[in-house]
Amino acid sequence: MSKLVKSLEEAIKLCGLKDGMTISFHHHLRNGDFVLNMVLKEIAALGLKNMTINASAIFDIHEPLIDLTKQKVVTGIETDYMGRTVGEAISGGILEKPVIFRTHGGRPGAIDTGRTPIDVAFVAASQADDMGNCTGKFGKSACGSLGYAMSEAAHAKKVVVITDELVPYPLNGFSIPEVNVDCVVQVDAIGNPAGIVSGTTKITRDPVGLKMADLAVQAIIASGLLKDGFSFQTGAGGASLAAAVFLKDIMVQKQIKGSFVMGGITGYLVDMLEAGCFRNIMDVQCFDLKAVDSLAHDPRHLEVSATHYASPFTKSSIVDSLDVVILGATQVDTNFNVNVHTNSQGIIMGGSGGHSDAAAGAKMSMIIAPLSRARMSLVVDRVQTISTPGKTIDVVLTQRGIAVNPRREDLCEKFKTAGLPIVTIEELKARAEAINGIAQPLKTGTKTVAEVEYRTGEIIDTIKNIL
Amino acid sequence: MSKLVKSLEEAIKLCGLKDGMTISFHHHLRNGDFVLNMVLKEIAALGLKNMTINASAIFDIHEPLIDLTKQKVVTGIETDYMGRTVGEAISGGILEKPVIFRTHGGRPGAIDTGRTPIDVAFVAASQADDMGNCTGKFGKSACGSLGYAMSEAAHAKKVVVITDELVPYPLNGFSIPEVNVDCVVQVDAIGNPAGIVSGTTKITRDPVGLKMADLAVQAIIASGLLKDGFSFQTGAGGASLAAAVFLKDIMVQKQIKGSFVMGGITGYLVDMLEAGCFRNIMDVQCFDLKAVDSLAHDPRHLEVSATHYASPFTKSSIVDSLDVVILGATQVDTNFNVNVHTNSQGIIMGGSGGHSDAAAGAKMSMIIAPLSRARMSLVVDRVQTISTPGKTIDVVLTQRGIAVNPRREDLCEKFKTAGLPIVTIEELKARAEAINGIAQPLKTGTKTVAEVEYRTGEIIDTIKNIL
Repeated sequence: MSKLVKSLEEAIKLCGLKDGMTISFHHHLRNGDFVLNMVLKEIAALGLKNMTINASAIFDIHEPLIDLTKQKVVTGIETDYMGRTVGEAISGGILEKPVIFRTHGGRPGAIDTGRTPIDVAFVAASQADDMGNCTGKFGKSACGSLGYAMSEAAHAKKVVVITDELVPYPLNGFSIPEVNVDCVVQVDAIGNPAGIVSGTTKITRDPVGLKMADLAVQAIIASGLLKDGFSFQTGAGGASLAAAVFLKDIMVQKQIKGSFVMGGITGYLVDMLEAGCFRNIMDVQCFDLKAVDSLAHDPRHLEVSATHYASPFTKSSIVDSLDVVILGATQVDTNFNVNVHTNSQGIIMGGSGGHSDAAAGAKMSMIIAPLSRARMSLVVDRVQTISTPGKTIDVVLTQRGIAVNPRREDLCEKFKTAGLPIVTIEELKARAEAINGIAQPLKTGTKTVAEVEYRTGEIIDTIKNIL
Repeated sequence: MSKLVKSLEEAIKLCGLKDGMTISFHHHLRNGDFVLNMVLKEIAALGLKNMTINASAIFDIHEPLIDLTKQKVVTGIETDYMGRTVGEAISGGILEKPVIFRTHGGRPGAIDTGRTPIDVAFVAASQADDMGNCTGKFGKSACGSLGYAMSEAAHAKKVVVITDELVPYPLNGFSIPEVNVDCVVQVDAIGNPAGIVSGTTKITRDPVGLKMADLAVQAIIASGLLKDGFSFQTGAGGASLAAAVFLKDIMVQKQIKGSFVMGGITGYLVDMLEAGCFRNIMDVQCFDLKAVDSLAHDPRHLEVSATHYASPFTKSSIVDSLDVVILGATQVDTNFNVNVHTNSQGIIMGGSGGHSDAAAGAKMSMIIAPLSRARMSLVVDRVQTISTPGKTIDVVLTQRGIAVNPRREDLCEKFKTAGLPIVTIEELKARAEAINGIAQPLKTGTKTVAEVEYRTGEIIDTIKNIL
């Protein structure tokens, strides 16, 4: 008995894929992913139409999706993040149905509870055996955690594992067990390792970014949360990573033993683990090869499912135990709502990812972003797109001052006592506008090109086409 | 946020446990388990009645179950194995409804598919954090794999983790994630480590047992299956373990690199891993402390769920990839049916466990058992209870000859070529009867005290009350 089939075509046929079905993909190979394009090319060649893609993220490498959308091979897209290349086409209105944006916690929640059934899940794995036990930890295309693929594999009607490194049964250290897998396909390459490493996982050298990172660490200290047992999530933006590096120095110096760090995992967070700042890394996704290597070899570095990471529809997830998260923003408004979906022209170029989930869970959620970017103000009256509701954002930190959500008077007092440069969000807006002028309201079309679902499933905003 | 509650009573109330509900237990603490008794005592104190117990196994330590059955606190029992103490009471007819016997693969299959819903699962864990991440690998009451508890935890409406070692969040190396857990209770002791080690996990010194073990290894060699990639399961009976030890010597000597070994894991199998005989141990249950220690520290020793181990209702399980299994028997009949449920008096004193599952999956399933025990013949016309159907048994090996199922002419030829002492099953029966005489047919009552479900769910036999 073996589940190995000769080709992707055979796998697709074996799974009974038909017009109008929903197929899923995960994004651990990031901008190096070959699998989504490879599968859709085969689906197009088989003449299938009206597919819905449920992908944990869409990167620029998935540009062929644009043409497949025009050809009606793909007529529905559900995702947690969309890079600018596909985003611009979507914003131009090429898709009849709105894209549905979810969060990294909302998506597995919707899959686990059956709200968004998947007909066939395509799992990209850097190692697999012929019965379907598979992982991303080892192999030439190793990408680390397969956290986002776990819910899909557990619930999809059919599961196809696509690998470029077949190993003898049983695969040691499987991330997804054979029990979920229908067939296995071997291909030349599932991705380009160079693209798996995100371009953003380098610490900033920009003085503004370094200043914000330093302020962020001061704010964390002032919050009183930085003590034994401290838990931390940060994104992979340059200033966020700088904050992690500064935080590491403080934790080592003060001998603070944190509990866990999570988020997209980078080498900087591995350094913190190895320096004893944290007992564990909880890893739903690796951002660089140092993180991949650590997950493969360090038993303190734990692979977790997206459900475990952040689903609001489970009995608890890790974000519920999170102390501090540092998050980015393209816009923040005076109600503390955050936009990470659209740029100043209203073009889709991002998505929540785990932004909303971590903000909802953390004891202190902190946005760090420069007050101006490309002559546009960070703070506005109303964000172009609400990605994360203001009620879950505690702090907006810029190089020109820190605004604390009025709901968190406790934090505001602590920051004042620590001598941090506290301002109101309105003052931040005024300072930004003094530099950049008041932005003209953006004129968008009337067609809804995307709906933004909050992690619990309700639509909190829509994105209109650009003119 | 914490899921820690003050007492078992509080946990039971929080889960909304009511008369007539079904609760589950797993048996990794074996005859050292305190948890089943502790929970039932509390349930009785709360005045609840008509509970159904779905337990992966019932040991002698669970004797209090007898009185609770008489008091109608428990009116239904579903299990994969039942030790003689409770078995004798059941055989005496104390329960109105028949006990339902399943297999270690059939049980998770029935849970996963929703055929046997569980209202509240009680998970005994030697370490847990206050959000419910838990394991059996570490702690003073470490019992190793929690494989049987995984399906319960994934599917029960409510899940209570009972631990005697609470650790800071997050527990490193969790076996069951918090996503499944409703509450956590800390108790003084979940079990007696001395009882966790089975009394049967010692190699035999009996010359008959050693002779059978030697013959078994010769049969494995003759089968042609002993080559690189070889996979093996054995029980924890003395002769089976002796076979493992002899097999190890051969594999080391011939430099055969097997793939995996599984079954209840003993130190003897750990020795085989460490000697390089196998790449991996697939562990659904540890039988001794050496196995527990290996699982906790050797990354080649993998914890697997009961679903992954043996469920016939999943896309594949490990038994499907198994080459050879060595199994025990109390009776075998001339159709190769095997009884491991009842003794010569018809009293329940066992159960399939993974017997039927491994027999169904393995390329060669071999029963090894002495021709006579306590002046009773091993081979009879019809076993008292069909535990494992003869169509899945390939070989019956005794100290007085080896019978091969006529369905496996290929194997018979190979054994003959190797000069093994081949006999027919009828000859084995005749030889046994020559020693013991012909057994008088057992007279049982007319009340059905237990039904034996095959792994796929159909009832293949019933057990009547003893007179």
